[in-house]
Amino acid sequence: MRSTERNGPAHSRAAEASVQSLPVSVLARAALIVGAFGVDEPFLGVSDLSRRTGLAKATVHRLATELCTVRVLERSEAGGAYRLGSWLFELGEMVPHHRSLAEAAQPIMEDLLEATHERIHLAVLDGVDVVYVKILGGRSVSVASREGGRLPAHATGVGKVILAYSPEAAVRSRIEAGLPRLTPRTVATPGTLGRELQKIRDAGLGMDREESHLGVSCVAAPVFGADGHVRAGLSITGPTRSVDPTKLGPAVRTAALTLSRVLRQSGL
Amino acid sequence: MRSTERNGPAHSRAAEASVQSLPVSVLARAALIVGAFGVDEPFLGVSDLSRRTGLAKATVHRLATELCTVRVLERSEAGGAYRLGSWLFELGEMVPHHRSLAEAAQPIMEDLLEATHERIHLAVLDGVDVVYVKILGGRSVSVASREGGRLPAHATGVGKVILAYSPEAAVRSRIEAGLPRLTPRTVATPGTLGRELQKIRDAGLGMDREESHLGVSCVAAPVFGADGHVRAGLSITGPTRSVDPTKLGPAVRTAALTLSRVLRQSGL
Repeated sequence: MRSTERNGPAHSRAAEASVQSLPVSVLARAALIVGAFGVDEPFLGVSDLSRRTGLAKATVHRLATELCTVRVLERSEAGGAYRLGSWLFELGEMVPHHRSLAEAAQPIMEDLLEATHERIHLAVLDGVDVVYVKILGGRSVSVASREGGRLPAHATGVGKVILAYSPEAAVRSRIEAGLPRLTPRTVATPGTLGRELQKIRDAGLGMDREESHLGVSCVAAPVFGADGHVRAGLSITGPTRSVDPTKLGPAVRTAALTLSRVLRQSGL
Repeated sequence: MRSTERNGPAHSRAAEASVQSLPVSVLARAALIVGAFGVDEPFLGVSDLSRRTGLAKATVHRLATELCTVRVLERSEAGGAYRLGSWLFELGEMVPHHRSLAEAAQPIMEDLLEATHERIHLAVLDGVDVVYVKILGGRSVSVASREGGRLPAHATGVGKVILAYSPEAAVRSRIEAGLPRLTPRTVATPGTLGRELQKIRDAGLGMDREESHLGVSCVAAPVFGADGHVRAGLSITGPTRSVDPTKLGPAVRTAALTLSRVLRQSGL
């Protein structure tokens, strides 16, 4: 997962910026700096940030200092590098559409965990990727998925069930962005993806057979919001030998239906 | 909990700003706008934001539009109000010191949940408040605690166990900031707090007896980082009648010791 991870849109803009023109506005430059941090790059100094953003060191130093004042960045204890600040954690937990979904899902996901002892994922579609909103369990499986992490939608169980019930435009966007292979088993052609999504709609259930990680499979079901549109994907993930769709399919589908009902009842 | 919640330091700065001078820098003004959003105020229009920040409507409109471009804010579907953006969720999940703690804690907290079926809290000290980093379980209890939420440290079990093992200056800061009562049972005088912290150090365990919410109690234990300093508080929270320290104390203490050992082994 690590190699495919990236820090949202601002990060890709940062990559573009270094070959194209740099943004002029203070906020866009600050976003470049914040977007340079990643899971694998939690601590960055002025030189690292300058190299990654294409901004002059003096600019980076001035903006990073200001970002520390508002607690978006913090100085790490050792060496004077910067890291993302605690206020971002507090703000992130307040993002309303993610929060309401995660809060409604948590007790249902805890039930699934207790019943299956596998890894339970809840993810939403964001552009052409899925973003994991809540993850529970899974000490038995070596998946590096993490809350807030992204994967290409077509390569995951949660992503495929969301795409299956999304407007055709969402599928087209994913195809136009490419269908990169995460493993030799990833669905990697538009034709295969179309047939796979039809099968999901027929069954109300999707599977990921080692398509995102070798040795790891999942069963997934769609979650619908109060407006009737698909809102999220819920999945049970585990070692391929223990993920039996006959056994786990009804469990994940029941949980997804329960969550959809809770969202409908509370107008979320 | 709602009435005592607030959106971090920038929010209190916003309150000050309206009576004092407004910040000049673009980033400080943008932080005022972002800090105006809260759990109870997830959607704010230009007029709301102008009133809450003291900034002119034209300034708010310009900065909010720019913040949307970098996905820190988003327009909500209905009515054209703004909300905190999805990128903040992704960034918040990458804040390294919270992330490493939460990831190490999650399996241990899941074990506690399975063993007790009560609500499990993990929190860190941030200034004079505790911030909840991870919460599991607790369908049986009507506590409104939430991940990313804050409470005054002296009024919670997790906060008191952290204060008990923190440098004296941390306790003094809390006393100087005041010891507000959340319930009639909150520890509200410096003398009582001092004796309570000594009792926690003697027992290696703390209790919250309806001090943050009437009808709700908890047992809490301190978690230590690789550097030997107290890093977090871990607690089991439930209806007062079901929180028996004789029964739950050893469970939360075992889990806190396990988590401290994991942090020490991985150098976190």
